[in-house]
Amino acid sequence: MSFELTKNAQVEIITIGDEILIGQIVDTNSAWMAKELNAIGLSVVQITSISDSREAILSTIDLAGKRAKVVLITGGLGPTKDDITKATLMDYFGGEPVFSEAQYEEVEKLFKSFGRDVSAINRKQAEVPSSCRILVNSRGTAPGMWFEKDDTIYISMPGVPYEMKWLMESQVIPALKSRLILPVIEHKTFLTQGVGESMLSEWIETWENNLPHHIKLAYLPSPGLVRLRLSAFGDDALSLSADLEAQAKGLYELVGEHIYGEGDISFAEVIQKLFLEKNLSLSLAESCTGGNIAHLLTEVAGSSAYFKGGAVTYSEELKKSILGVSQETIEQYGVVSEQVVTEMAQGARLKFGSDYSIAVTGIAGPDGGSEEMPVGSIWIGIGTPRGVIAKLHRFSTNRSRNITMASLSAFKMLRKAIHES
Amino acid sequence: MSFELTKNAQVEIITIGDEILIGQIVDTNSAWMAKELNAIGLSVVQITSISDSREAILSTIDLAGKRAKVVLITGGLGPTKDDITKATLMDYFGGEPVFSEAQYEEVEKLFKSFGRDVSAINRKQAEVPSSCRILVNSRGTAPGMWFEKDDTIYISMPGVPYEMKWLMESQVIPALKSRLILPVIEHKTFLTQGVGESMLSEWIETWENNLPHHIKLAYLPSPGLVRLRLSAFGDDALSLSADLEAQAKGLYELVGEHIYGEGDISFAEVIQKLFLEKNLSLSLAESCTGGNIAHLLTEVAGSSAYFKGGAVTYSEELKKSILGVSQETIEQYGVVSEQVVTEMAQGARLKFGSDYSIAVTGIAGPDGGSEEMPVGSIWIGIGTPRGVIAKLHRFSTNRSRNITMASLSAFKMLRKAIHES
Repeated sequence: MSFELTKNAQVEIITIGDEILIGQIVDTNSAWMAKELNAIGLSVVQITSISDSREAILSTIDLAGKRAKVVLITGGLGPTKDDITKATLMDYFGGEPVFSEAQYEEVEKLFKSFGRDVSAINRKQAEVPSSCRILVNSRGTAPGMWFEKDDTIYISMPGVPYEMKWLMESQVIPALKSRLILPVIEHKTFLTQGVGESMLSEWIETWENNLPHHIKLAYLPSPGLVRLRLSAFGDDALSLSADLEAQAKGLYELVGEHIYGEGDISFAEVIQKLFLEKNLSLSLAESCTGGNIAHLLTEVAGSSAYFKGGAVTYSEELKKSILGVSQETIEQYGVVSEQVVTEMAQGARLKFGSDYSIAVTGIAGPDGGSEEMPVGSIWIGIGTPRGVIAKLHRFSTNRSRNITMASLSAFKMLRKAIHES
Repeated sequence: MSFELTKNAQVEIITIGDEILIGQIVDTNSAWMAKELNAIGLSVVQITSISDSREAILSTIDLAGKRAKVVLITGGLGPTKDDITKATLMDYFGGEPVFSEAQYEEVEKLFKSFGRDVSAINRKQAEVPSSCRILVNSRGTAPGMWFEKDDTIYISMPGVPYEMKWLMESQVIPALKSRLILPVIEHKTFLTQGVGESMLSEWIETWENNLPHHIKLAYLPSPGLVRLRLSAFGDDALSLSADLEAQAKGLYELVGEHIYGEGDISFAEVIQKLFLEKNLSLSLAESCTGGNIAHLLTEVAGSSAYFKGGAVTYSEELKKSILGVSQETIEQYGVVSEQVVTEMAQGARLKFGSDYSIAVTGIAGPDGGSEEMPVGSIWIGIGTPRGVIAKLHRFSTNRSRNITMASLSAFKMLRKAIHES
């Protein structure tokens, strides 16, 4: 038996267990699996989360198998829930329980590392239906199981993320690649900031409509950002890459000034790369973003190589004592003003001894707005060796959104200032 | 038409859009919705993610409607994808497009706040099928739509989390509560920090096994925290609350020292409440947490009433110049030491003029560890009017986890210091 999937091969993912259905955990497994499958040219067309009841498992597997060439099943294999899922799979695919010495060795090894003996309930973890090919799990007690029926592949894996990931990377992905004839697929992702999805789509409409048939565009929005992903399908990776490059040119001509990077990286990573390349240093003076900019930068490993530090100056006194903003400026112009953000940016550069600085002062909300300075009014200043570039932004009425938008807008201004220097 | 759902009413969630299927975003909406629905006595039995293709939408809605009393649909309503989902819903439920003045006003208001006119594509956002009751969305352009067919309720909402949450809280949940006969359900949530799920479950095993049949316990873990949620089902809210109070006593006797609060609030909100009640002020000196503590505190509206600000002193120079840590201390004990964290905590209190302070210095990773100070070693100091309380923590090898754990552990130490003062 061999499958030929020359076009988008269809995959479905089924997650079994109550944790997702009661909102106890967020299903991060499916997103991770979908990304990995996409990278080898497999498309996920449906993800279904169900409880570990016999009836739900049977009907969901049956429906998925009718639609998809590959069905990946995660969860429902813990020692306490073992019976339902594994027994149901055996009913559906046939066979009888067989004991796997190879898996039992892994179970024993694991228990030994905790200084404990294998209990009866965990011994059963090493049993699988004879109708499957076992995928031995050396990261946990529950093995993976590979079934085939009516031209569809079904793979059951434990739901613990790091066990599932290990099985996928070491066994499932390689086996799928050798078992299926997959299309070649190439991606190119453009990171944009500061323009909404609808405006972007208006600006690039003609370009988008003229994309060749084998190239598809996806809008991938997240708060404050839109990723544009081009995917090219075909037979030859090199020519697909060339096709993508050609289309990229057209995109840069239309919206190049809003593209801050390519690939699957964060804006903070783009900033870090830029600062390291140019051997520059950065400091911060945050008021209404309250440490979020510092947090975004320092989430990235290696940030200490260019990021010196910063001040979160929520109170007026600290704006004066730490950053050297003058009392007169605050009195004359107000604390949310071009003059104050400029002095904050200058103060940060001087006091913290950095080449560049970001300063933010504004009204994140929900309270504190006035008629001329409503909630969402935020001044951002970029301190540079040639002076401060300041701009007033008007975001939304939502505090958390304002903090995010101000942080990303600051990165955009900073990047521009460096590129134009 | 009126539904009687005296027991757990069955709900299905359908998410429409490629973002989840290609692994670009994790589906956090469904978990949030499931939690909210659980809280009013509704059970989610299936979550299905599909692409915005007409065929997938039609077959999925049809299957879900046969199984569930309530079908919640999110996504697929962005201005660029509008046509498929909304048109498909109109095909399925019947009717013709009608223009909603009320939604258009919201669209206009939104565009006006950006200083722009409404484009044709966004004008169409205000159109809905005549077969639905419109749920006006004042947080975005796409309205919610409430359909009913064959004794099942179908509600379509935009996929943008904060728009969906606003619609759910302000319109969908209240409407479901008045439309359905739901069981009386009372919850009590206990927030614990610093103890893992498996250890907690061992400590409270006997108490948990002795819970009466109408009270259920759920473990809701998130990084660094475990929420314990007791849910009581019955007919009378008052007696259920009394039952929960009685069980709470037993829980506090077993693990009271790890419970930092009750309800569905964050640790930062607990800290804010405490500081406001006692009329105290706080400042920060963060090194390896890189602004995350400041960010967690300032995410909460009203934090400026007690939080003065802080310094993110990534570099040694800033630890000295901003916080007044001495060169000798750093040389003698190293930058990750009890002595340095103590001077940082003292420096923050003095320089920033606050009653209390939090100071953190450690090795977040992935690099920078040594044999005696491996990655994950983090000193936390709490500056109080009576001196500094410092403690060395050993977390994990994961940078992001270390930052989260250090931040939450600092809150736990701070809360304890204030309660014991």
